[in-house]
Amino acid sequence: MIMSDKLVKILNGIKDGSLNVDDALGMIEGNTTVDLGHTKFDLSRPSRNGFPEVIYGAGKTPEQVGDIFLKLKDRTNLLATRVRPEMAAHVKSLCAGVEYNELGRTLTYISHPVDYREGEVMIVTAGTSDLGVAEEARVTCEMMGNHSKVISDVGVAGIHRLMERLEDIQKARVLIVIAGMEGALASVIGGLVSKPIIAVPTSVGYGASFSGLSALLGMLTSCASGVSVVNIDNGFGAACAANRINCL
Amino acid sequence: MIMSDKLVKILNGIKDGSLNVDDALGMIEGNTTVDLGHTKFDLSRPSRNGFPEVIYGAGKTPEQVGDIFLKLKDRTNLLATRVRPEMAAHVKSLCAGVEYNELGRTLTYISHPVDYREGEVMIVTAGTSDLGVAEEARVTCEMMGNHSKVISDVGVAGIHRLMERLEDIQKARVLIVIAGMEGALASVIGGLVSKPIIAVPTSVGYGASFSGLSALLGMLTSCASGVSVVNIDNGFGAACAANRINCL
Amino acid sequence: MIMSDKLVKILNGIKDGSLNVDDALGMIEGNTTVDLGHTKFDLSRPSRNGFPEVIYGAGKTPEQVGDIFLKLKDRTNLLATRVRPEMAAHVKSLCAGVEYNELGRTLTYISHPVDYREGEVMIVTAGTSDLGVAEEARVTCEMMGNHSKVISDVGVAGIHRLMERLEDIQKARVLIVIAGMEGALASVIGGLVSKPIIAVPTSVGYGASFSGLSALLGMLTSCASGVSVVNIDNGFGAACAANRINCL
Amino acid sequence: MIMSDKLVKILNGIKDGSLNVDDALGMIEGNTTVDLGHTKFDLSRPSRNGFPEVIYGAGKTPEQVGDIFLKLKDRTNLLATRVRPEMAAHVKSLCAGVEYNELGRTLTYISHPVDYREGEVMIVTAGTSDLGVAEEARVTCEMMGNHSKVISDVGVAGIHRLMERLEDIQKARVLIVIAGMEGALASVIGGLVSKPIIAVPTSVGYGASFSGLSALLGMLTSCASGVSVVNIDNGFGAACAANRINCL
Amino acid sequence: MIMSDKLVKILNGIKDGSLNVDDALGMIEGNTTVDLGHTKFDLSRPSRNGFPEVIYGAGKTPEQVGDIFLKLKDRTNLLATRVRPEMAAHVKSLCAGVEYNELGRTLTYISHPVDYREGEVMIVTAGTSDLGVAEEARVTCEMMGNHSKVISDVGVAGIHRLMERLEDIQKARVLIVIAGMEGALASVIGGLVSKPIIAVPTSVGYGASFSGLSALLGMLTSCASGVSVVNIDNGFGAACAANRINCL
Amino acid sequence: MIMSDKLVKILNGIKDGSLNVDDALGMIEGNTTVDLGHTKFDLSRPSRNGFPEVIYGAGKTPEQVGDIFLKLKDRTNLLATRVRPEMAAHVKSLCAGVEYNELGRTLTYISHPVDYREGEVMIVTAGTSDLGVAEEARVTCEMMGNHSKVISDVGVAGIHRLMERLEDIQKARVLIVIAGMEGALASVIGGLVSKPIIAVPTSVGYGASFSGLSALLGMLTSCASGVSVVNIDNGFGAACAANRINCL
Amino acid sequence: MIMSDKLVKILNGIKDGSLNVDDALGMIEGNTTVDLGHTKFDLSRPSRNGFPEVIYGAGKTPEQVGDIFLKLKDRTNLLATRVRPEMAAHVKSLCAGVEYNELGRTLTYISHPVDYREGEVMIVTAGTSDLGVAEEARVTCEMMGNHSKVISDVGVAGIHRLMERLEDIQKARVLIVIAGMEGALASVIGGLVSKPIIAVPTSVGYGASFSGLSALLGMLTSCASGVSVVNIDNGFGAACAANRINCL
Amino acid sequence: MIMSDKLVKILNGIKDGSLNVDDALGMIEGNTTVDLGHTKFDLSRPSRNGFPEVIYGAGKTPEQVGDIFLKLKDRTNLLATRVRPEMAAHVKSLCAGVEYNELGRTLTYISHPVDYREGEVMIVTAGTSDLGVAEEARVTCEMMGNHSKVISDVGVAGIHRLMERLEDIQKARVLIVIAGMEGALASVIGGLVSKPIIAVPTSVGYGASFSGLSALLGMLTSCASGVSVVNIDNGFGAACAANRINCL
Repeated sequence: MIMSDKLVKILNGIKDGSLNVDDALGMIEGNTTVDLGHTKFDLSRPSRNGFPEVIYGAGKTPEQVGDIFLKLKDRTNLLATRVRPEMAAHVKSLCAGVEYNELGRTLTYISHPVDYREGEVMIVTAGTSDLGVAEEARVTCEMMGNHSKVISDVGVAGIHRLMERLEDIQKARVLIVIAGMEGALASVIGGLVSKPIIAVPTSVGYGASFSGLSALLGMLTSCASGVSVVNIDNGFGAACAANRINCL
Repeated sequence: MIMSDKLVKILNGIKDGSLNVDDALGMIEGNTTVDLGHTKFDLSRPSRNGFPEVIYGAGKTPEQVGDIFLKLKDRTNLLATRVRPEMAAHVKSLCAGVEYNELGRTLTYISHPVDYREGEVMIVTAGTSDLGVAEEARVTCEMMGNHSKVISDVGVAGIHRLMERLEDIQKARVLIVIAGMEGALASVIGGLVSKPIIAVPTSVGYGASFSGLSALLGMLTSCASGVSVVNIDNGFGAACAANRINCL
Repeated sequence: MIMSDKLVKILNGIKDGSLNVDDALGMIEGNTTVDLGHTKFDLSRPSRNGFPEVIYGAGKTPEQVGDIFLKLKDRTNLLATRVRPEMAAHVKSLCAGVEYNELGRTLTYISHPVDYREGEVMIVTAGTSDLGVAEEARVTCEMMGNHSKVISDVGVAGIHRLMERLEDIQKARVLIVIAGMEGALASVIGGLVSKPIIAVPTSVGYGASFSGLSALLGMLTSCASGVSVVNIDNGFGAACAANRINCL
Repeated sequence: MIMSDKLVKILNGIKDGSLNVDDALGMIEGNTTVDLGHTKFDLSRPSRNGFPEVIYGAGKTPEQVGDIFLKLKDRTNLLATRVRPEMAAHVKSLCAGVEYNELGRTLTYISHPVDYREGEVMIVTAGTSDLGVAEEARVTCEMMGNHSKVISDVGVAGIHRLMERLEDIQKARVLIVIAGMEGALASVIGGLVSKPIIAVPTSVGYGASFSGLSALLGMLTSCASGVSVVNIDNGFGAACAANRINCL
Repeated sequence: MIMSDKLVKILNGIKDGSLNVDDALGMIEGNTTVDLGHTKFDLSRPSRNGFPEVIYGAGKTPEQVGDIFLKLKDRTNLLATRVRPEMAAHVKSLCAGVEYNELGRTLTYISHPVDYREGEVMIVTAGTSDLGVAEEARVTCEMMGNHSKVISDVGVAGIHRLMERLEDIQKARVLIVIAGMEGALASVIGGLVSKPIIAVPTSVGYGASFSGLSALLGMLTSCASGVSVVNIDNGFGAACAANRINCL
Repeated sequence: MIMSDKLVKILNGIKDGSLNVDDALGMIEGNTTVDLGHTKFDLSRPSRNGFPEVIYGAGKTPEQVGDIFLKLKDRTNLLATRVRPEMAAHVKSLCAGVEYNELGRTLTYISHPVDYREGEVMIVTAGTSDLGVAEEARVTCEMMGNHSKVISDVGVAGIHRLMERLEDIQKARVLIVIAGMEGALASVIGGLVSKPIIAVPTSVGYGASFSGLSALLGMLTSCASGVSVVNIDNGFGAACAANRINCL
Repeated sequence: MIMSDKLVKILNGIKDGSLNVDDALGMIEGNTTVDLGHTKFDLSRPSRNGFPEVIYGAGKTPEQVGDIFLKLKDRTNLLATRVRPEMAAHVKSLCAGVEYNELGRTLTYISHPVDYREGEVMIVTAGTSDLGVAEEARVTCEMMGNHSKVISDVGVAGIHRLMERLEDIQKARVLIVIAGMEGALASVIGGLVSKPIIAVPTSVGYGASFSGLSALLGMLTSCASGVSVVNIDNGFGAACAANRINCL
Repeated sequence: MIMSDKLVKILNGIKDGSLNVDDALGMIEGNTTVDLGHTKFDLSRPSRNGFPEVIYGAGKTPEQVGDIFLKLKDRTNLLATRVRPEMAAHVKSLCAGVEYNELGRTLTYISHPVDYREGEVMIVTAGTSDLGVAEEARVTCEMMGNHSKVISDVGVAGIHRLMERLEDIQKARVLIVIAGMEGALASVIGGLVSKPIIAVPTSVGYGASFSGLSALLGMLTSCASGVSVVNIDNGFGAACAANRINCL
């Protein structure tokens, strides 16, 4: 999985004796996955993706997540998403210093101070009901070293609310726009701002919103060019995309 | 299909001899459908629905539509929608005075002067590609006696274009808002104007617009309250809805 | 967000000294949003949309809704929709005079007498199971100043039930037609009445009704022209659309 | 594939010598499929299903259909459906006496006089555009020995047209109701008539009719009980279902 | 809503004095709906549809259903479907003699002996999990005067199970075939039997069965001609369709 | 349901007296279904399908499953899938020796030692959340006589984890690849390995994964040729397909 | 992309001088992709997947495909699928010896004699219209070294046709079952045969078959266990899956 | 639509006489839309969005596009997308210097030298069939001032092809990943690279790819975090998103 010029160097290293076969094998194959039995935790991800592996709480038991926090918290900062309150309680009972964000359903542990880069990620939501997704995005941004702020409840049904905040919005380096129902906020901001915009459709709405499908399709077919979209309710993914951009 | 007090009167009329049975039968059952063999044309519809039956060209042959125009044009004004150019040519060759609107694909014949009522129906489109649907709506409005005007290409990707026309838009009595892709224009206008709004999703777009589905779902789940929606590309239906309102 | 002739006046006002910059700023930008932290409540909506912002209970906590009622109930009449019984109980415990409609799941507080306009909004349902949606529509209509009445259980499987009520239905100024399953009631009434008709598909039904999709598609493709449609189970939206019309 | 008492008889026949093994084998396995290379034509179907195998023209070449008609026309009456005009021309050029119904796209050859049973199948359509499907149903009914008649253009947008024909409709033994768009005609007739009703959704309509999906879902969720449904545009299948019933 | 020759007779009756206006009005308009406040119960349905109105339990409260049983049980036999156990318990506590079928979720009360007609409705299911739908169908058939029997668990994965029962199946006058997953049983029986077949897709299955959609589509596109289909899990509707047929 | 040369032999057997009619009937019709009232259990399935009938727990009551285990456990090994914990507890209380796999939700009873064949079925999962489906597959494989092993958490987001295990994967005789979300693991393994691959989409994911639809469509349209797919979450079906292959 | 023990050997080879760096690089990175500008043709695929890269004609120009045949035909046998007649004509005009299968739309060139393995792949189709997909599968099987045969038109509407061929079907080593409409043939064969079965849904059908969706869902939810499925109309993919199995 | 501190400055400017009312009006309302009758061309977009309005050719006539090029080509560089060859020919006949990219279906005219910024946008495609979308993206990137390059045909079915190019891919500043079918390439690259990734699903594929839906869902649910997605086949939109990022 390595690049060929690096490979040439390794092979030459063996040839001239500066490397032994075992070390070369490690360099070629990598050796940074921690196997906890239930989970293979990928510690090498920062070097490849720019951020550590994040724990997806929805498909795990409280015991599994607790185990991950216990065993890895001193080696890397930890972020778990989609954490139900009972899971949070269990993990907190195991590890002092773990913090739970109830609205965003995130669990975090910071053992190494976060190294913030310049440039702010601005998170804008259409309604109050989108705040959980916004919090997931905000916490993820912060854990990855991005200053971030939430502006909420500026949906297009009262477009002057948006206009009042437009200057703030235009100052951000990267924008995350979160909206349910028809998701029109992404189109309107997309037409007003030249910065990168990650749109997050939410499952807010009922009936023909079909659990976020209406917002998803609306954002994908936005008449404002250059808006890109992540999965429904995926505040975490939007933050990762914003982080990839803000790292530039 | 008649109201019971009218029925009481008819029955009393028979009893007191002022009506004979045949006439009463006609009054109860109505007698206003013209049977052309291929089509039963409903001349009584204006009294029930406020406008004459309109010919849907898509499912008919040029010969059938030509026959309808020939046989009925002197009894009522005629409007046919979804008329392909060859169909239009055929009907025009049969009946002088028939007019074809190529963009809106409508065919019209006016034998009785249209009686216009007050109040304008304003038709607003997001893009140039929505103009065909807008023309179908405009011609239908006019045939039904409503002054109507089209404002085009004011989609939300450049929201200042809309703002420049907002005053005109606010003056209308009824609004028809036509947009494809994500259909966000309906939400934005819905938040800015207090007049009745009929939203028409169009099949403009590709990919995840799924032939108008994205705009349809977007308009149905609009965060601006009180926007109602008709079928995809249904300029005719929107005009009928606007006409029902403007007749008040 | 204001019209340009109004803008010319404001600018001239500054020039001739009759307006100071601060006031002009307020006039241009508006200043009618109340920020409660969790919610930005839009008090200016009546002037733009003809009715006050309505609280959507589904995406809020009982505490948030209680806070809105407490802080705003003396400034404007309040309507919350999709209110679960526990939420209602909480708000009622905070504010005396709040009323809960269990069937329609609405919560209302009237501090300023409602100013009724002429013209009745008639709400017609196909079945008993549609009554919750009908009540949401009726309460919303009333709060916005429209007399309104519900005629229920006149679905097309026993079309004589509808015929018996047809005269009443024809007297209304605006009609809201609510039906689940195949939603055929909208088509039948659409063919019999010339008044504006807002159709509301409901999620009543099972299997191939796909949570209201069958009624939604049926109403959108109605063979009766000029019927417009709102979201599934959206009694509130239908009432807003009816109110926009009845205000004419 | 045979019933066990018949099997006992055959086995006893072998035992007592009244049957030889070859004949018994034929009786157990059947021997009524004609193999034309491209097609295995099932001549035994009448005994199992009550009608001969029908040729589905859509998936065959003109040559294949011509070959079937040539080789089998003297052994059984033949019906082909979904026959394009070129295919019809080809087959007619091969076999004198073949008839093509252009509207219904059926091709028929009658070598044995059809044996009609009592009881009429009435085919009712909502609009003119449904006539092709109606013709396919009518020809199929007739070929299978059922008198049948078409009443067209009585859709619910002008429900009095239906009422005028109700008496005729109520006289039929079996009803086929054909409608596109929202398909409401099936519900209305279902509520007025106690006879068996086969509903056929058609692909007539556009936009949210999604090629017949709206009518299909509407008919499946009909509030009138006991309406059963066949595939979109499947006039042939409806006729087969009606034939199964009318044979009782 | 009445036929015109009957109407001519009524009108002539008034003319010749043999009918007074009030009675004629009743005859024309009918007068057989019982209004219970929450429900308009249609007592005239037997004359139009061949069976009494059936109570759909899913959209009603136990109190409403209890009220219907109490008030109407002496006027007509009663059948309620989709009745949850608590609702059943409530109604049984109000009315002695009410019977609850737990598997089929039906509630019945027989005040007038059911008048059975000849001819059996055979209900065939693919699996054990389809038995609830089968019971709903069986009870409905019986209440409407049709002898009926259930053959279960003869799905096509072990086709010899079906073959063993084929003779019984072929003896029925009408068949109801109930299957989930891919619903292939309807096709196989459709190819083996010449009697009318009503297919009922069930929501049995998971994943790509999409709550019955796979069985529904499979039955609609069955290669066996003349199989007609009702809504997913709609044992009641299938029984109504079978009853319409068996009444011939 | 038997092959014709076997049939010829049976018929000849009767003819020459070596078989009596009753035995022949049994040989032709088979006689291996056990009827438990609620369930027809098919004991002949191993001869036709290569494995015994498996009990699908989802659509049965604990009592029914308990009854099947009690009555049949000495005649054949038993496997039940989709068994909820309460059902498992009930069956275990009835029959000693029954084992419950909580993760895979399987219940097994082994009365006859499993006869293992050579060749391993390797089960590979993308994430920890896919382990339940993997366990269902593994237990089914083992019960049918296939050695099988699970390699988990080697999804493509960290493709080096997969590469580390590639050698093991390439040694298997048959592969089952289990993944949710976009299901890309099947494509990547499909491109690296020449062995038969059964892909199982899982419902792991949220939003646009639409309960497994995204993984299902992704696997069906895999750019790696020769990957075949079973239903969403269908570990059991994948094991059956692998068993059919491994039996070769 | 290579296994680690092979890697150890290569690295040791460099160390002891038996391999130079360039050769080792080639062994690690492979060097078997031919770059034709428009296409990177993967010659190493046989070693990884067991068969050469196949050209997908649908997304290429006749010129591109012609170029691939010209440049590679002497290095490997070639198979192109989804080849339109004009494309075939162009390639044949460039390279003598290329063969076009019109029904299966495949183009083949055999420069190296195909090495057939034992065991037959049997391809079974429900109807005549499925033959194109069957031919694509058959040609692909043959090119990959598998004897294969097509049995057509044995769909379940006349299940005795299938029974007559059952013995032949049971003799095959691997089965490909191809069916459109409801796809029930896969379930019926799945219940009768213990061999591996690859099911191919086809787009044969109309209306609710939704271009093959009904057959696809039906096959995925088949009640016969162990049937796996490939994409709609994907005869090629089914053959690749069968080849993976038959190579065991 | 302007920011409030800029507004304060303008208002103060009027007050102190440094601005007259007309100029202030222009500054507040903007004045940069060119109205060509059929189209309102938005020249102010660069200041808001960072790139000029692009002409969407699909919904326009050749005459309209020709008119836009003629009238605006000297004021701004022009790019039209989705241009059919006849449209291209027409425009080229009107304006010398217009260039048509047949594969990408773009039409360009450069009157002002493009000002390139640093940082390359790398466009990676899974297959040859994705090249048209890649070209649309590449041309758009270039027109907006971004160096860009296409790496094609490195889909995951032969993952070593991707590995050979990985170093080049990792050097880019922004990545556009284009793939049809299951779209797995985005996940694999997403796991290997830390740069911003815009994924473009294409409609390449058939059957269950449902015109790009499979790739779209796959990319939205990618297990690689931080991949964002644009509409199906939307090379243009991806380029706009990349441009927003590369402008940072």
